Amino acid sequence: MNLSDTFLRTLDTPAALVDLDVVARNIARHQHACTQAGVRNRPHIKTHKSAQIARLQLAAGATGITCQKLGEAEVMAAAGIDDILISYNVAGAAKLPRLRALASRCRLTLSCDNATVADGYARAFDGRDGAPVRVLVECDTGRQRCGVSSPEAAAALAQHIAALPGLAFDGLLLYPPEGDLTPTRAFVEATRSACAAHGLALHTISSGGTPNRARIGQAGETEYRAGTYLYNDRQMLRMGAAAPEDCALHVMATVVSRPDAGRAMIDAGSKILSSDLAGFSDFGLLPDHPQARIYKLAEEHGFVDVSACAHPPQVGDVVRVLPNHVCVVSNLLDRVLALRGGQATDPIVIDARGRVA
Amino acid sequence: MNLSDTFLRTLDTPAALVDLDVVARNIARHQHACTQAGVRNRPHIKTHKSAQIARLQLAAGATGITCQKLGEAEVMAAAGIDDILISYNVAGAAKLPRLRALASRCRLTLSCDNATVADGYARAFDGRDGAPVRVLVECDTGRQRCGVSSPEAAAALAQHIAALPGLAFDGLLLYPPEGDLTPTRAFVEATRSACAAHGLALHTISSGGTPNRARIGQAGETEYRAGTYLYNDRQMLRMGAAAPEDCALHVMATVVSRPDAGRAMIDAGSKILSSDLAGFSDFGLLPDHPQARIYKLAEEHGFVDVSACAHPPQVGDVVRVLPNHVCVVSNLLDRVLALRGGQATDPIVIDARGRVA
Repeated sequence: MNLSDTFLRTLDTPAALVDLDVVARNIARHQHACTQAGVRNRPHIKTHKSAQIARLQLAAGATGITCQKLGEAEVMAAAGIDDILISYNVAGAAKLPRLRALASRCRLTLSCDNATVADGYARAFDGRDGAPVRVLVECDTGRQRCGVSSPEAAAALAQHIAALPGLAFDGLLLYPPEGDLTPTRAFVEATRSACAAHGLALHTISSGGTPNRARIGQAGETEYRAGTYLYNDRQMLRMGAAAPEDCALHVMATVVSRPDAGRAMIDAGSKILSSDLAGFSDFGLLPDHPQARIYKLAEEHGFVDVSACAHPPQVGDVVRVLPNHVCVVSNLLDRVLALRGGQATDPIVIDARGRVA
Repeated sequence: MNLSDTFLRTLDTPAALVDLDVVARNIARHQHACTQAGVRNRPHIKTHKSAQIARLQLAAGATGITCQKLGEAEVMAAAGIDDILISYNVAGAAKLPRLRALASRCRLTLSCDNATVADGYARAFDGRDGAPVRVLVECDTGRQRCGVSSPEAAAALAQHIAALPGLAFDGLLLYPPEGDLTPTRAFVEATRSACAAHGLALHTISSGGTPNRARIGQAGETEYRAGTYLYNDRQMLRMGAAAPEDCALHVMATVVSRPDAGRAMIDAGSKILSSDLAGFSDFGLLPDHPQARIYKLAEEHGFVDVSACAHPPQVGDVVRVLPNHVCVVSNLLDRVLALRGGQATDPIVIDARGRVA
């Protein structure tokens, strides 16, 4: 990102700035990887929460999208996106009429890891006209988040779903830990056998995660959910899943105070960078001041140690910050500024921001 | 907060739920403390970011409000609030026309800790009709955030401001560290003398911070900025600045999975609780399950260790979470649900959410 001083001076900071050329390259590269692996691409919109960006992903070859929350899916369906997976246990009576309405507006696939949630889905769709709603069984192959923890439990939940009105068991939802996929593949194959014994086929095996993109297809998946690859972040750099030139989003901040020789205060705090350390001990990277360190955040202040910088930024200077975790930054903003060919273009609207429920 | 099972089952989670009776009590108690101390009450809206709540604070006796960002002040002025302090160095060319427009809509007071920012203010207001805009000098009396670090530097910046067109030096902005205010008071008195030697009076001395509320007036302040007292949070409990019954906002979450006997997964992750540890080692308190511990957050998942709970919550149960830091929770939501007299009432609109710039 080569930004002119003139451009930097026009910025109303703090703001997130996205390079759409980098976004286009990231989308194309990921689509190519999925296509090469013979795996459908179903990008996770949690990273951008924007129908405009989802349409770019679909135009490049994605067969549908993934949402983490029902509220996100509602926004995407309202924007005309018609193939949506919710990779989350959607629970609670208030969600059921919303689920039913959503299923009438798009090709919906759900997931769950327990019978209580599956029973809710059945209540939502019982007596509904049209094809049953596809449901995947979420499996835990080592991440210890959600998911059934054995192939036997997966097959038992598959049978439970298959017997419920309004639902069709469709396969498995995986979110394997980073690294070797052999245990995940073994889990899938054992589940396949256990399901086959009850006459149930795994039509869909959905896997995901940007860091595991180098191993697409190795868990036996038919489709892939990745989100962060779109923008990338400091975390992806650390994991070797992206290079600096693949990072499409930076938070632009102004130095508002230099209280002493070693400290610069920037106008980006936890309300735009978030407090997500993502395993780091500081709150973001300043690519143009690599010796600087954001050692603390207040809500609207970033505390930057510039004591090691040969040319520390001065009051009024605009600096770039690469966030630790980009998905939580999009979630704090109604829009992000955008560049194309190095020139400012229309901002990207984050229409599903704040759709937490 | 005694919530019926019927009410809990209607909730569409995750959501923030505010008890307006607790809010009213917190507002009244804080106003009383300010009045007793003979100090004007200028609450900080960063905690609620809602014009509706700001009006409650003003109706109870506050003489104006405090905003941390220009964008917040614009929202509040547009809602008809007419006495606004921005307790922040507002920097950058893009801000200057916005500042000028804002000053035409309300009685505006600004603050700064350096001449570069003051010079920007003068460019914004030079040649403007009407009274000059009041500017406070931000002083660092030990918190090591922003602020000039000596009474001499404060007096020098006061002289600089007094000589600029469109501005009137009005006094000091303090944000003392928690605890003994003797050093802060000494800083103020030394600055008062140094300013007097140049014919400059300290009309306003603005101090703040909810934890220091027990010492209102002890820094020699004429007005007090506190924000968190409105809702309180786990941090305020730890500091002894609030009791459990003073906590007005909880995040309501549903247990979506019980993958094993020791783990419950809730539908509140970092996109509603934020990752702000606020000095804790976990991500919020479950008041109704005190043995539970939110040991990790993903974006939409809270990982709860329930192994020590005699009666751990089950899938579908709704639990209350007291956030570590409430101000960053409001900032993630467009509205919070509200109770009055134990009954659901209209949600509170967070109209200044996302106004980071």
